[in-house]
Amino acid sequence: MLPIPFSFSSSPHPLPLLRRRLLRRRSPLPHPAGFSQEKSPSHLDFVFSGLGVAGNTNNIFKAAVTPAFSPQLPGLNGLGISAARLDIAIGGVVPLHVHPAASEVLVVIQGSIVAGFISSSNSVYYKTLHKGDTIVFPQGLLHFQVQSGVLPAVAFGSFSSPNPGLQIVSLALFANSLPSPLVEKVSFLDDAEVKKLKKVFGGTN
Amino acid sequence: MLPIPFSFSSSPHPLPLLRRRLLRRRSPLPHPAGFSQEKSPSHLDFVFSGLGVAGNTNNIFKAAVTPAFSPQLPGLNGLGISAARLDIAIGGVVPLHVHPAASEVLVVIQGSIVAGFISSSNSVYYKTLHKGDTIVFPQGLLHFQVQSGVLPAVAFGSFSSPNPGLQIVSLALFANSLPSPLVEKVSFLDDAEVKKLKKVFGGTN
Amino acid sequence: MLPIPFSFSSSPHPLPLLRRRLLRRRSPLPHPAGFSQEKSPSHLDFVFSGLGVAGNTNNIFKAAVTPAFSPQLPGLNGLGISAARLDIAIGGVVPLHVHPAASEVLVVIQGSIVAGFISSSNSVYYKTLHKGDTIVFPQGLLHFQVQSGVLPAVAFGSFSSPNPGLQIVSLALFANSLPSPLVEKVSFLDDAEVKKLKKVFGGTN
Amino acid sequence: MLPIPFSFSSSPHPLPLLRRRLLRRRSPLPHPAGFSQEKSPSHLDFVFSGLGVAGNTNNIFKAAVTPAFSPQLPGLNGLGISAARLDIAIGGVVPLHVHPAASEVLVVIQGSIVAGFISSSNSVYYKTLHKGDTIVFPQGLLHFQVQSGVLPAVAFGSFSSPNPGLQIVSLALFANSLPSPLVEKVSFLDDAEVKKLKKVFGGTN
Amino acid sequence: MLPIPFSFSSSPHPLPLLRRRLLRRRSPLPHPAGFSQEKSPSHLDFVFSGLGVAGNTNNIFKAAVTPAFSPQLPGLNGLGISAARLDIAIGGVVPLHVHPAASEVLVVIQGSIVAGFISSSNSVYYKTLHKGDTIVFPQGLLHFQVQSGVLPAVAFGSFSSPNPGLQIVSLALFANSLPSPLVEKVSFLDDAEVKKLKKVFGGTN
Amino acid sequence: MLPIPFSFSSSPHPLPLLRRRLLRRRSPLPHPAGFSQEKSPSHLDFVFSGLGVAGNTNNIFKAAVTPAFSPQLPGLNGLGISAARLDIAIGGVVPLHVHPAASEVLVVIQGSIVAGFISSSNSVYYKTLHKGDTIVFPQGLLHFQVQSGVLPAVAFGSFSSPNPGLQIVSLALFANSLPSPLVEKVSFLDDAEVKKLKKVFGGTN
Repeated sequence: MLPIPFSFSSSPHPLPLLRRRLLRRRSPLPHPAGFSQEKSPSHLDFVFSGLGVAGNTNNIFKAAVTPAFSPQLPGLNGLGISAARLDIAIGGVVPLHVHPAASEVLVVIQGSIVAGFISSSNSVYYKTLHKGDTIVFPQGLLHFQVQSGVLPAVAFGSFSSPNPGLQIVSLALFANSLPSPLVEKVSFLDDAEVKKLKKVFGGTN
Repeated sequence: MLPIPFSFSSSPHPLPLLRRRLLRRRSPLPHPAGFSQEKSPSHLDFVFSGLGVAGNTNNIFKAAVTPAFSPQLPGLNGLGISAARLDIAIGGVVPLHVHPAASEVLVVIQGSIVAGFISSSNSVYYKTLHKGDTIVFPQGLLHFQVQSGVLPAVAFGSFSSPNPGLQIVSLALFANSLPSPLVEKVSFLDDAEVKKLKKVFGGTN
Repeated sequence: MLPIPFSFSSSPHPLPLLRRRLLRRRSPLPHPAGFSQEKSPSHLDFVFSGLGVAGNTNNIFKAAVTPAFSPQLPGLNGLGISAARLDIAIGGVVPLHVHPAASEVLVVIQGSIVAGFISSSNSVYYKTLHKGDTIVFPQGLLHFQVQSGVLPAVAFGSFSSPNPGLQIVSLALFANSLPSPLVEKVSFLDDAEVKKLKKVFGGTN
Repeated sequence: MLPIPFSFSSSPHPLPLLRRRLLRRRSPLPHPAGFSQEKSPSHLDFVFSGLGVAGNTNNIFKAAVTPAFSPQLPGLNGLGISAARLDIAIGGVVPLHVHPAASEVLVVIQGSIVAGFISSSNSVYYKTLHKGDTIVFPQGLLHFQVQSGVLPAVAFGSFSSPNPGLQIVSLALFANSLPSPLVEKVSFLDDAEVKKLKKVFGGTN
Repeated sequence: MLPIPFSFSSSPHPLPLLRRRLLRRRSPLPHPAGFSQEKSPSHLDFVFSGLGVAGNTNNIFKAAVTPAFSPQLPGLNGLGISAARLDIAIGGVVPLHVHPAASEVLVVIQGSIVAGFISSSNSVYYKTLHKGDTIVFPQGLLHFQVQSGVLPAVAFGSFSSPNPGLQIVSLALFANSLPSPLVEKVSFLDDAEVKKLKKVFGGTN
Repeated sequence: MLPIPFSFSSSPHPLPLLRRRLLRRRSPLPHPAGFSQEKSPSHLDFVFSGLGVAGNTNNIFKAAVTPAFSPQLPGLNGLGISAARLDIAIGGVVPLHVHPAASEVLVVIQGSIVAGFISSSNSVYYKTLHKGDTIVFPQGLLHFQVQSGVLPAVAFGSFSSPNPGLQIVSLALFANSLPSPLVEKVSFLDDAEVKKLKKVFGGTN
């Protein structure tokens, strides 16, 4: 009806014109929030159905994170928010990691999770969370989630960025081509441990 | 251990000193994210247990929103994120509203919800959401959630602000002292409707 | 003279070279504020003459808003500011609306305006403004302007965004294809009122 | 009615309670935009009447700028916007200056103004503006306004900050205690000129 | 001279008044950038002499970081920038770490440093840097610096925050009270390695 | 290994797949910080070798600024930080200037520099800096650096923007086509001085 904000002064008979406009709706349509963007947005940009299904936890972490970030949910672009579903099977873990671009709020939906983070002054904050419990992980701080109890755990995380990023310390150290002597120098780990974990996580050198 | 970032050059024997510091830990401790703040944070600032219990939907909206915002969860301060639990009983609604300070992502946990928003160009985006479905409400746009189907609905919303604010149109118009003639002038509603709804929502004048 | 910031070390004889550069000025020229952009900016990007003429108030609102937003004034892009002229004829109104992306400051230039907003806690702030009076509308809050007195009103609004967006509640509810039962559910208005206003504003369904 | 956002689940009989709350309205009330603040805001925080009166131009610049910044209009705090009235008598000038914290949009209300700015690459953008013309001054760039034509000029400026700051080059160089040899070194002006202007603007040393 | 921005319209004889004001200069003086602050700033708030002296590298890392952050240099508050001096003795290392609140630019002043970071997709970017070489560490990503060559290394780092924070992985894992089984679970390290490093870094449990 | 964040749920046998992915690494790779971008980043985007060489000070300022801004160091894009090397020969000066888009921190590496800035209230803050001394220049404020002592000066500046911009007052006034009468009007300089400096700096009109 008002493809251009404030355009209601553009015609002496705005309402009939308005109706015709509605039928035609020519591009470029603005972003629903008023920002301009290249193509017209649709329902598909703002709704995502992927978080209703458990992720596949048949992996070394016995855990799965299913993202609803801007690549999955384009309507998030520019909005400073995103979400993800976390499944942790019995015995599973989301190991020590950091989101470079976002703070996180985690709500437990099923089961129990030992979740915590380490502060800039190396203090530890951790607690066993049950259904309905919520924890905050401040931006850029190392944190973790470990399944506890007798049920697989399900949780929803929210992030203060449409694309928060993820950096798991074990993968950063052991799943790439960073040479073992350099890994050992920057981590204080011994050579045998580094080589064992490089085998586990697929690292080379 | 390192109450002041980078302080590891401050002593020729840092580790023994370090241990003593750990035992004493004097204030002012920095915020876990490295920002300074007045008092030492604790677990209580970062964990909240209020979202596990259904809100009381025995009200005119047959709905309840239980917030985990910065007043409930002080660790959110400065982090650009917060969360809330939404309960909508059968026949219930979260009526047309806006969050002045945040975009929202909503994930349905139980039941079905017809959720939608109206864009800056007055286009409507709405859809029936089922368990696991996610929808985005861009910052500052009018949106709504209506229970549908045969189960009470439960959902979790996340917000791109530690304190997103809430403005429900029906309450903004009918639950305060804005004089009826002014309400009618700015809403194009007729006098009988305005007076009826002022009675429902507790408005005066 | 310095098409690239700090480039004055690039030549042993900077001044003669400088003059030649001035005459040629090859693209890509940076944005005047130092940001790079695709094409060279010109006077036309930074000056706009559209706010000197009254908008056409011959419409249902008896009001007109003439924007100087980034589509009209491209130099505003990235600068966090824009402006608009507001004309309200006698008996006119800018009905209840919200700018999703900006706070607003309004200065009355001619006539009188009853202007106000509703807070997140549903408190009302409104006042009759005369020539030279200024009012603030915080971002994302519902607000309105009603002509009062014996003169058509003229005002200038400024916005904390190059493209603040606009969402008028009456148009959001009654000028699109949102089905009447859904409108009634989310607004608590009765069916007759909704259908009457859908006719007025061009809505369907 | 809802002093705490989303509190409508807090009572089984929200409406009667609501009315009582409205009458009592205890602090701390949140900011109308939903942010918390120490004291309850009032109308006085959001309305300012100082821009209706011409500033006193009986000074060396023959110009006056009357601010509606956050010190004058506390409701602007945190909102990223402010305004000011500019009066320039015949022959007057707002000399070369910069706003450290804001971009500016200027609208001419009366008379004519030669206004311009210099870009990061030292290109000049200037134009004679008449009633209703608008110009953009990007943040941090040197700019100026000179009255032209036969009428005193009046304009309204808007700023992308609640407190944009102001730094006039002539005052920065000649109205303080910066020693003349240092002024000359950093400005390439000769000694006589510097000493003459220090006398004009009140500088010492 | 102009303790209140734009106040030059406040007197019919601004210059004499101006001079008197200069002599008296009453608080509250605004921040030099135009922001208000509680006490008058002084030279001491904007100048810091601590980066001229080598930090003490007689510690387990054989390295020292001397910060010029907002606690050391109060004038940085609110300005989005800070700096630090890095000294690494022969054989020294700044082990794998992250700055939660800032990106970093590092310039090598003396000696050689192997510096690198790991990306969100676990790719490694590292290189031997010599005098004058610069490297970027994007915000929130794990990175490290290792002395190489025959000279002690000196470098200056800059940060996109007045207080960037620091989290060293080895200290986060081994220098606090996080129980060893939990450390092992979230790091995939074996028990002997964890206990060995807890002894090195002072951790308990 | 994890080209898509959180993708470790995408396969029942993630590790073998992981290795194959590492070998192939297809675009589009995300930005190392987790942001998406068009082409894959490389070492070259994050390392720059240009600051190890003295800039050519054989110019009117006897000074050179060698930038490591986003055009030189593309990895800085979006990160809110950049750096530059400053060389000032004996008798040289970086004259009064402003960075429109950034605050600056300057560290002296060799020699002595008289550095200072002028505040929004026209107060002067300046000091002679020696090796290792650091000074802050808040965003948008006029500032300067003058070599002092017996050695050429070298310093490193850091900026709170990947592309801070630069505006030197002498060039803004005297190195472009701004007509001399207008220069005089906005600067209070006399005609002879303006014409002399236009010749020095290459201005016309």
